[in-house]
Amino acid sequence: MDSDGRTPLVGLVMGSDSDWPVMREAGEALTEFDVPYEVGVYSAHRTPRRMLDYAAGAADRGVRVVIAGAGGAAHLPGMVASATVLPVIGVPVPLKYLDGMDSLLSIVQMPAGIPVATVSVGGARNAGLLAVRTLAADSGELGARLRERMSRFQAELETKVLDKDSALRERVAAGE
Amino acid sequence: MDSDGRTPLVGLVMGSDSDWPVMREAGEALTEFDVPYEVGVYSAHRTPRRMLDYAAGAADRGVRVVIAGAGGAAHLPGMVASATVLPVIGVPVPLKYLDGMDSLLSIVQMPAGIPVATVSVGGARNAGLLAVRTLAADSGELGARLRERMSRFQAELETKVLDKDSALRERVAAGE
Amino acid sequence: MDSDGRTPLVGLVMGSDSDWPVMREAGEALTEFDVPYEVGVYSAHRTPRRMLDYAAGAADRGVRVVIAGAGGAAHLPGMVASATVLPVIGVPVPLKYLDGMDSLLSIVQMPAGIPVATVSVGGARNAGLLAVRTLAADSGELGARLRERMSRFQAELETKVLDKDSALRERVAAGE
Amino acid sequence: MDSDGRTPLVGLVMGSDSDWPVMREAGEALTEFDVPYEVGVYSAHRTPRRMLDYAAGAADRGVRVVIAGAGGAAHLPGMVASATVLPVIGVPVPLKYLDGMDSLLSIVQMPAGIPVATVSVGGARNAGLLAVRTLAADSGELGARLRERMSRFQAELETKVLDKDSALRERVAAGE
Amino acid sequence: MDSDGRTPLVGLVMGSDSDWPVMREAGEALTEFDVPYEVGVYSAHRTPRRMLDYAAGAADRGVRVVIAGAGGAAHLPGMVASATVLPVIGVPVPLKYLDGMDSLLSIVQMPAGIPVATVSVGGARNAGLLAVRTLAADSGELGARLRERMSRFQAELETKVLDKDSALRERVAAGE
Amino acid sequence: MDSDGRTPLVGLVMGSDSDWPVMREAGEALTEFDVPYEVGVYSAHRTPRRMLDYAAGAADRGVRVVIAGAGGAAHLPGMVASATVLPVIGVPVPLKYLDGMDSLLSIVQMPAGIPVATVSVGGARNAGLLAVRTLAADSGELGARLRERMSRFQAELETKVLDKDSALRERVAAGE
Amino acid sequence: MDSDGRTPLVGLVMGSDSDWPVMREAGEALTEFDVPYEVGVYSAHRTPRRMLDYAAGAADRGVRVVIAGAGGAAHLPGMVASATVLPVIGVPVPLKYLDGMDSLLSIVQMPAGIPVATVSVGGARNAGLLAVRTLAADSGELGARLRERMSRFQAELETKVLDKDSALRERVAAGE
Amino acid sequence: MDSDGRTPLVGLVMGSDSDWPVMREAGEALTEFDVPYEVGVYSAHRTPRRMLDYAAGAADRGVRVVIAGAGGAAHLPGMVASATVLPVIGVPVPLKYLDGMDSLLSIVQMPAGIPVATVSVGGARNAGLLAVRTLAADSGELGARLRERMSRFQAELETKVLDKDSALRERVAAGE
Repeated sequence: MDSDGRTPLVGLVMGSDSDWPVMREAGEALTEFDVPYEVGVYSAHRTPRRMLDYAAGAADRGVRVVIAGAGGAAHLPGMVASATVLPVIGVPVPLKYLDGMDSLLSIVQMPAGIPVATVSVGGARNAGLLAVRTLAADSGELGARLRERMSRFQAELETKVLDKDSALRERVAAGE
Repeated sequence: MDSDGRTPLVGLVMGSDSDWPVMREAGEALTEFDVPYEVGVYSAHRTPRRMLDYAAGAADRGVRVVIAGAGGAAHLPGMVASATVLPVIGVPVPLKYLDGMDSLLSIVQMPAGIPVATVSVGGARNAGLLAVRTLAADSGELGARLRERMSRFQAELETKVLDKDSALRERVAAGE
Repeated sequence: MDSDGRTPLVGLVMGSDSDWPVMREAGEALTEFDVPYEVGVYSAHRTPRRMLDYAAGAADRGVRVVIAGAGGAAHLPGMVASATVLPVIGVPVPLKYLDGMDSLLSIVQMPAGIPVATVSVGGARNAGLLAVRTLAADSGELGARLRERMSRFQAELETKVLDKDSALRERVAAGE
Repeated sequence: MDSDGRTPLVGLVMGSDSDWPVMREAGEALTEFDVPYEVGVYSAHRTPRRMLDYAAGAADRGVRVVIAGAGGAAHLPGMVASATVLPVIGVPVPLKYLDGMDSLLSIVQMPAGIPVATVSVGGARNAGLLAVRTLAADSGELGARLRERMSRFQAELETKVLDKDSALRERVAAGE
Repeated sequence: MDSDGRTPLVGLVMGSDSDWPVMREAGEALTEFDVPYEVGVYSAHRTPRRMLDYAAGAADRGVRVVIAGAGGAAHLPGMVASATVLPVIGVPVPLKYLDGMDSLLSIVQMPAGIPVATVSVGGARNAGLLAVRTLAADSGELGARLRERMSRFQAELETKVLDKDSALRERVAAGE
Repeated sequence: MDSDGRTPLVGLVMGSDSDWPVMREAGEALTEFDVPYEVGVYSAHRTPRRMLDYAAGAADRGVRVVIAGAGGAAHLPGMVASATVLPVIGVPVPLKYLDGMDSLLSIVQMPAGIPVATVSVGGARNAGLLAVRTLAADSGELGARLRERMSRFQAELETKVLDKDSALRERVAAGE
Repeated sequence: MDSDGRTPLVGLVMGSDSDWPVMREAGEALTEFDVPYEVGVYSAHRTPRRMLDYAAGAADRGVRVVIAGAGGAAHLPGMVASATVLPVIGVPVPLKYLDGMDSLLSIVQMPAGIPVATVSVGGARNAGLLAVRTLAADSGELGARLRERMSRFQAELETKVLDKDSALRERVAAGE
Repeated sequence: MDSDGRTPLVGLVMGSDSDWPVMREAGEALTEFDVPYEVGVYSAHRTPRRMLDYAAGAADRGVRVVIAGAGGAAHLPGMVASATVLPVIGVPVPLKYLDGMDSLLSIVQMPAGIPVATVSVGGARNAGLLAVRTLAADSGELGARLRERMSRFQAELETKVLDKDSALRERVAAGE
């Protein structure tokens, strides 16, 4: 349960707490949409069975989407997907070398049968927003609320662009 | 409506009918799970407004997930995502050169705000399965049915592996 | 109209004002050649219809070339090109990861039918110069003026190389 | 002069006649728009001075845009651009290895001062269309005619997409 | 037990029997060195727990080295390594696209703590030879025998090079 | 002999002492497992024969595994492997440019006949752990001790993950 | 000695006779310039000492340039360079996967101190021509002869381009 | 003439003086071997004819080898090679993005007929040493002197490795 006693709808997991500075943006997006979530450190390579147990039990505990972030030979998202029927969103976390290209390919190139919904390198905010869209596909009240809220969010994005557009025109007119 | 008169839950779109040999595997996966879907050719570059209109109207017509496939400078999935609140799954279609790396990066590297759930190069079957998982996250009856069905699907995958395992051991024992 | 009341001949657009530090070099090049231009923030993903409207109306307002910069899954140049008959120049803006390779491929690998004139990663200055060359192809007085001016510009580049050549020879002769 | 005695507006050059199977699509696009062009084999590495002479004299002979295709260490487009004030469009021709990535980078990564308008790997048709758009930016009658013609071309592209859309829906409805 | 009733010293596993045409070369190398091995199909994504069970039990059954081949998001070698203390050799199997670069990075870029001994793309023969070298490091009789045998193998490689050298010189002298 | 008078079981070599900041992590891992090792600077390109002599004599001096680190055109691991029957572990050391991709390919893509066990870019700690696993495959007392020790090490890794998991949950609960 | 009893000036070596179909083009170029050469199969990994002996003795036997071709982890050119004072030209031979990018990086990224003159992937003909240019730098009669001959060769290249130019113009004029 | 009044044997040219911090290492290597050289800034794109004139006249002025450094679409080495019969050594200068991969491919992938001897990204010191080896292939006194000197240089490299080896062993023995 989250701090308001609500059942988490999203599981936000990562292989190490060193991934948190990247992954926290997923949590922030969920909070903006008032979607309760849980966090956890589950390592595919250091705690393989515990990771599978988490994935296998998630649906029964009420989780509806799992977001998993990992870097390098990033096996966590795919392994979580292997042990759950829920949609799994993978975030390629960039490491010191190779700019996250290894993380991206290790997550996105899953074999037929076990998909992972992959977002951009370091794209944890979009992972959170993709979880919201997934819940927005719900046929019930939650879906309706989130579709409405996402629609407003997109209108806000548009407004911000218009503001930036005005600001840029002014700067250029002012000869900056 | 599909041939049984059911409202399509998934929109399966692509930039050109030349993408169909790749994308049809998404449709086949949906059919295996008895998920009604519609198909369409919508080009981001040749029919931009019609493509946006399709995306903008999808949710109201009952569509819950959109799968979009494209190759090269593959803008279709991201542009569809810009005009809907629904989850959009992107399939990088490989073209003659570059092995789909251009398609992959053009789809997965979306800016913060507008996510696309990307699958592997040519991974249309997994796009279909990801759409199923997305619908399996539903809080209603559909979700329960699809979670149960996906669970069975995964058990079948496991059985197939066991069969292949036996067959390989026999081949090797037979000195092949 | 620009600050001298002249109709802008070039539209210089980008997906976010965060692209301005890169894209301003295009504006500076246009200013050096005394070509009036307008700027704007138009996001393919956050304001898709407004972006298409801008592109569709540009020619009638007197714009002759559009320069569009974007990063990551850089769809702006290609989408602008889809809605105008004018030449569109794309600038791949490098983001934090992947050194702009994603931006480059997303811009340059356009499908047959809708070309984008792509310059180097971060090459906004060259985008400005390419716009000048495009206008220099004009059959009227503008073209003649710009061809003459570009010819002088190239002579100046040559002079600068000669100066650098002398300076380097002196430094080396001085044992630096 | 072309076969109708008209002054060529576009120069279509390549490093070897082995590039012609790729580059001829540029010529076909120009023909569709009734734009007269000339062809030539000019090698940056085998005939450097003749190549520079061609580039330097093009504008005075009435050429308004040059299209140059080359593969591998593809220097032709950039070297042509160094010797003319006209816009130069570069086509990366893919060779036996590396899928044209070497050609692309050798053409697009030009230094500040000398731009090349680069199209996709093997994208000669788009090079032709980009030349048309460049001429469509003309302030005179030619520009007006080509803008109108390009507008019709884009409408035709749209129609073709609609036809493909119908055909695909029928095939899928027919259970293909 | 292998066909001679000996305990297998090497476990040769892969995610699918479609990997066998590549992986059988590992088995052939082991046979050349008279090292008993077992084969099996264990999928990280389709049979995750069975795969972990296999890995966890391997050492107690007498297996000393595991060779694991996989393609795409190739998680098998790393996941096997997570559940055993034995050395695990990973073979990147090339798939239809990307030439095995995805497989290579997914196998070799393991996080600190859980190493995988990676060989070349498609390098199953070398995986077999590396298993032999690993057993050749044994302090007992097996090690002595295999070091001696590997030494002879390397001498044979040298002889083959000398033969090829003579043959090539003759061909060239003969003007071929 | 190491400082305790024990015969080194692992040779830890590199092409230059500038590789030591990366490679020392291999030594630290060996020390954690109480495996005696020797270090040395042997350059494939600057001291080719001395490097081959080292490799050729290693087994007779009691060395059982060689770890070799190198960057760029990283030939050391492969050349060491050419002159010994022992398993050789290669560490791709990243240099100033290309993020170690050149080092990785130069080490891992060995031809059939001469394998190198390659670890991740900069992955010297894993090279040390892979050497431990290789010795853990030993049939004697050493193997038993190291298998037991590696098993404990993996349990410690698991404990660390659990600790990080708790810490992260607390941080998130505290609203950090 | 070559078939005319002349001392070979160029050593043309490769790791395997399977490289000959690529490497023979180097020999053909040398023959065109009447430069005597010797061939040999020397494997860096299968015959390391014999390879070093060849390299070390080449200068004293009159060889002036060595051309070495290899694929994958292509160590031969760099290792030959480590054991001779002569210029060594490296030819990256493409293998089944990765299009020769591994071969290229393994050859060209040599550490400071031991250079290899690298040509394009599969560029054996250019390796032969580079050997000719190297000998053309000679201060004696050989150099004068080869400079003159290379000058003629370049004139012939130019003539061929002119012929291709005429042929292409005719084909296009004929409406092909 | 250099400062001692000697005819330069090597021409060391670059596209811009901003390349000098990289390229000066080539000059330092030449100075170590007492080989006179000249420097110059010649831009393929800004001073194409002057660059060709330099290349065409080099041999007659006594230059025997040209070293050319350039970055991005690095055309200078190839264009110099097109206008001289001398061996040309190309140095890929890394720019702000892409780590010099664009420079490397633009230099090394020359078409058949016009070779460039390419060294590593930023490898100007090796370019200088390769020029020395090229002159060491000379049949006269200069060649003999440089072969002897290069032999000593290689012995010095070996000594440095031995010193580093001792130093590293001491540091490790001291527990650093």
